[in-house]
Amino acid sequence: MNRTQITAGRDAHHRPKGVAADELRRHNLAAVVESLHLHGPVSRSELTATTGLNRSTIADLIGELTNLGLVEEGPAVAPSGPGRPSPMVRTRPQGAVVLSIELSVDSVAVATVGLGGYVYEQVRVPRPRGESAAETVEVVAGLSGELIEGLPADAILTGVGVGVAGVTRRSDGFVPLAPNLGWRNVALGEMLASALGLSDPVLVANEADLGALAEYRRGVGAGVPHLIYISGEAGIGAGIIHDGKPMLGAAGYAGEAGHTLINPDGHLCRCGATGCWETEAGEAALARLAGIPSSVTGLGLIDTILARANDGDQKTLDALAEIGRWLGLGIGNLINVFNPQLVVLGGFYHPLFPFLEKAVFKGARLGALDAPGDIADITAGGLGPDAPLIGAAELAISEVIADPAGHTRARSG
Amino acid sequence: MNRTQITAGRDAHHRPKGVAADELRRHNLAAVVESLHLHGPVSRSELTATTGLNRSTIADLIGELTNLGLVEEGPAVAPSGPGRPSPMVRTRPQGAVVLSIELSVDSVAVATVGLGGYVYEQVRVPRPRGESAAETVEVVAGLSGELIEGLPADAILTGVGVGVAGVTRRSDGFVPLAPNLGWRNVALGEMLASALGLSDPVLVANEADLGALAEYRRGVGAGVPHLIYISGEAGIGAGIIHDGKPMLGAAGYAGEAGHTLINPDGHLCRCGATGCWETEAGEAALARLAGIPSSVTGLGLIDTILARANDGDQKTLDALAEIGRWLGLGIGNLINVFNPQLVVLGGFYHPLFPFLEKAVFKGARLGALDAPGDIADITAGGLGPDAPLIGAAELAISEVIADPAGHTRARSG
Repeated sequence: MNRTQITAGRDAHHRPKGVAADELRRHNLAAVVESLHLHGPVSRSELTATTGLNRSTIADLIGELTNLGLVEEGPAVAPSGPGRPSPMVRTRPQGAVVLSIELSVDSVAVATVGLGGYVYEQVRVPRPRGESAAETVEVVAGLSGELIEGLPADAILTGVGVGVAGVTRRSDGFVPLAPNLGWRNVALGEMLASALGLSDPVLVANEADLGALAEYRRGVGAGVPHLIYISGEAGIGAGIIHDGKPMLGAAGYAGEAGHTLINPDGHLCRCGATGCWETEAGEAALARLAGIPSSVTGLGLIDTILARANDGDQKTLDALAEIGRWLGLGIGNLINVFNPQLVVLGGFYHPLFPFLEKAVFKGARLGALDAPGDIADITAGGLGPDAPLIGAAELAISEVIADPAGHTRARSG
Repeated sequence: MNRTQITAGRDAHHRPKGVAADELRRHNLAAVVESLHLHGPVSRSELTATTGLNRSTIADLIGELTNLGLVEEGPAVAPSGPGRPSPMVRTRPQGAVVLSIELSVDSVAVATVGLGGYVYEQVRVPRPRGESAAETVEVVAGLSGELIEGLPADAILTGVGVGVAGVTRRSDGFVPLAPNLGWRNVALGEMLASALGLSDPVLVANEADLGALAEYRRGVGAGVPHLIYISGEAGIGAGIIHDGKPMLGAAGYAGEAGHTLINPDGHLCRCGATGCWETEAGEAALARLAGIPSSVTGLGLIDTILARANDGDQKTLDALAEIGRWLGLGIGNLINVFNPQLVVLGGFYHPLFPFLEKAVFKGARLGALDAPGDIADITAGGLGPDAPLIGAAELAISEVIADPAGHTRARSG
């Protein structure tokens, strides 16, 4: 706790700022690209309606975006209603392609994704627990090189987004702590940029934050402005969307709900504290209660649990009910604090959800006050295990969307 | 938990919107008024510098604000530097006056506050615990009438802001639960509007949310965009400022940190659950540990505790250390989840802070991960017990600031 830090952070947001007219154009370009990116091809008149801008402004913006290679117009897919079919405006995926990387506890994944969400290629390989950051980065750089080589010749690589299962400083991709990867003080952003041979910074974010972003933009939470994504891997992470925007905190560390104290008589956590939410509701608790040796982890553990639960094994069902209860109590805490509309369960909670659901709802109702509890639903994610990888692509593409005219950079591959 | 609610909330934030030029002017008017309201009189050239707008735009905006009666220009207070003194631009407090109301567990307060933060009059009276909402509203309406009568003849009453120690729905000021006031399902916004004889809605907000707003805009957290305000009254409430904006959740219920589970073996809470943060770190815990009968509450309790602590009474000091420890552990949870730069303690934690400080810091360091813990400071509030009352005024004035041209309404008093 450091007073000088606060002084340093002051004033950035303190003086009310005016908006000049040139910022308006960038904002409106962004609104058009984002609409096409998220919702797919539309006619000019639909674009006029959804953005609230007039026809001549829309025509002008589409002209600039076409010149930038981000957008193209083509014939209508099918004539609809009377009159001539209106030409459809769509993104050019190759106009802005991003490299998306996910570093999870048990696997790493890489994908190349074009504007509009077009996935060129995607690959996921297992990651041995205990692998160092340098080793993981080397594996990822190799996979990335292959995927970039495989892109069409006219693809423009515009950025890199990375999701990692750890505490992440957004400004430079530094990871002070990733307890479940066994990493501490890793300059992940720099290491990846160097290994990939890129001069631009790579955008590194917490895996659960990216899961939240993905489920909000393209998943079960599409259009739900207040949602929480909970990622169950070795630990528990939370990503928060508040009023349609990622809630990251002062440095990007927000959402470390796995390390909130929920049971002072609980188990020792990898973070050094006792009775954290993840020691009571996480993977280790599940293995312990189900009587499975702690050497069985990750997908191996979840497959075993699923098989036994499907066979009706009582000890396994009891274990699931108990971690579901703690999971629900912790969700109740988050509902009280954030007042979300939706809590989305990802990671290993996703495949186990049918067995957890009842206990989770009961625990959450017990923990949450009625007023916020009444308007919060809990559900399994819509994007499955790839949510953080999709979120990493969205993070990198959001840079292109924010400033479409400023994004273009020649592909070095 | 209700799926239809989520469907109802969709789409409001989903379609990216363009910004038309007429919105720009309202935004820039707001920026000028807010700057003058928060930072006091400045010259036109300073206003040009802080808002980032050019001289002719500033002149034009000041002209409109002067016509609206919100701003006036006068001679410089003192000539500074060479050349002619630049005339100073300042707010006209009587151009927009708000009524500010605070409904706490042990007292109610009312103030009349003009644009720029000028307090015309302020009064606080004790509130007996157990008083019904109707009784409290009657008391407040009487006080309000007197204060409005006392305003200068040219004062324009533009709105009413209310802070209440309970869960508050922002849209209509409905209070589903105020456990420490003993209220349930109170249509507080409507009751107050009716009792005050106003047709416009009154803005009702949670007391801790308003404490956060006040400390961020005018207190110890001025210019700190990520802060949490913690109010200790009979219970514990939290108000969150994230990235310079109040974080309210889907319905305004966010920040109910007092009802997060922190100790399953703890005490029964007024909300019906066991081991909530406020049962371990709140007023009742303090009285219990200090051996003071539960009939002694509020200011009476705090005065007794302070007197004994100043006398070095060991049992009292131990009680303070124990609730300080729990307070710190809960603050650690909030640091992990929100990654704030500053945690501000208000309510009865404010006068007790010198005796709590050491245990609070220790508990927070234990509970928080190092990365977010390193950049979070904890301090007593800068505005003392009036923070929520000041926040209620800021809330009502913010409506004027958001749309200076649309605000004016004749005073009915």
